[in-house]
Amino acid sequence: MSTTTAETACEHGYITDKTRYFSRLRRIEGQARGIQRMVDEEQYCIDILTQISALTGALQNVAVGSLEDHLRHCVADAARTGGDVAEEKIREASQAIGRLIR
Amino acid sequence: MSTTTAETACEHGYITDKTRYFSRLRRIEGQARGIQRMVDEEQYCIDILTQISALTGALQNVAVGSLEDHLRHCVADAARTGGDVAEEKIREASQAIGRLIR
Amino acid sequence: MSTTTAETACEHGYITDKTRYFSRLRRIEGQARGIQRMVDEEQYCIDILTQISALTGALQNVAVGSLEDHLRHCVADAARTGGDVAEEKIREASQAIGRLIR
Amino acid sequence: MSTTTAETACEHGYITDKTRYFSRLRRIEGQARGIQRMVDEEQYCIDILTQISALTGALQNVAVGSLEDHLRHCVADAARTGGDVAEEKIREASQAIGRLIR
Repeated sequence: MSTTTAETACEHGYITDKTRYFSRLRRIEGQARGIQRMVDEEQYCIDILTQISALTGALQNVAVGSLEDHLRHCVADAARTGGDVAEEKIREASQAIGRLIR
Repeated sequence: MSTTTAETACEHGYITDKTRYFSRLRRIEGQARGIQRMVDEEQYCIDILTQISALTGALQNVAVGSLEDHLRHCVADAARTGGDVAEEKIREASQAIGRLIR
Repeated sequence: MSTTTAETACEHGYITDKTRYFSRLRRIEGQARGIQRMVDEEQYCIDILTQISALTGALQNVAVGSLEDHLRHCVADAARTGGDVAEEKIREASQAIGRLIR
Repeated sequence: MSTTTAETACEHGYITDKTRYFSRLRRIEGQARGIQRMVDEEQYCIDILTQISALTGALQNVAVGSLEDHLRHCVADAARTGGDVAEEKIREASQAIGRLIR
């Protein structure tokens, strides 16, 4: 997984809540395994789609939470530094938001 | 996981492609584990968000594929049967589509 | 606006509810004008974003409703016809669903 | 349209690009009117859904653009001020992002 150069300047926001992110992601992994089991057991398509929607929702919640932490720590730190550091951090956060919205 | 009564009437569409769904869901589970590892290794927030977007996209592709199979098999069978069977299947598919869109 | 050849075979689902679609789309046009006014009056960004979310939600509701009507009429008719007519209609509906989900 | 108290502290980001936002929103209003015309002319459901997807995409682009401007101006200003002003602005921006993602 690529590491973005701009990240070196700040202490990542989510780290203050690492355990909570970890358990939410662990649950998401379990949900993904659960959907595999439903396919294996040839369960009804609509029930599988319902679980996919639930898993997508759980992912979106993790994304919004980590974006908020990123704004609070990395983006706010960069804003206080100002100049290109702030500009790069804001551009980067906006692209991440765009990927999640579209 | 609840089984919806309406499902008994048809052979689920995705079963014709069960292995492919299974391997895609296996990959999704691996991606979920990968994001946990990124959090564990305290990687940069934006890189984690990029992986969450990729995982969400993979889930949406599985959802669209299984919806198409569901239309082709279950909904089409119900349409040929007609009456309440068709109405229930269309209502149910539309609700699943709504959950995925919103 | 391009007209898809496959459409000739069926009476469009939404036409049974044309007035309701028309008034919902009229409201959406009004919402779009309202957001222009907010920009013109230099209102707060977050208030504008809230209205954009509301407008996107209204559009999604129209999309899900017209998809349901399309399944109930065009896709169900095609399923009863069977063969390539059914296959084309299902493929086409699935692509429209994919565009709305992604 | 409600005005959020937190907005008084900053010059809204989008104002630096007001004309561009205005013309994009004008186009969106025209797209909404176009879809009404398609319904009025009883055009094919899938063609209408294609236009709804295009309109939704245009709205999302405006949303991502104005979020980026908001981060660059209002949120960055608040971060430099620090304390509750920064906390409120970040909380508010994250909620707006959440509404757009879900």
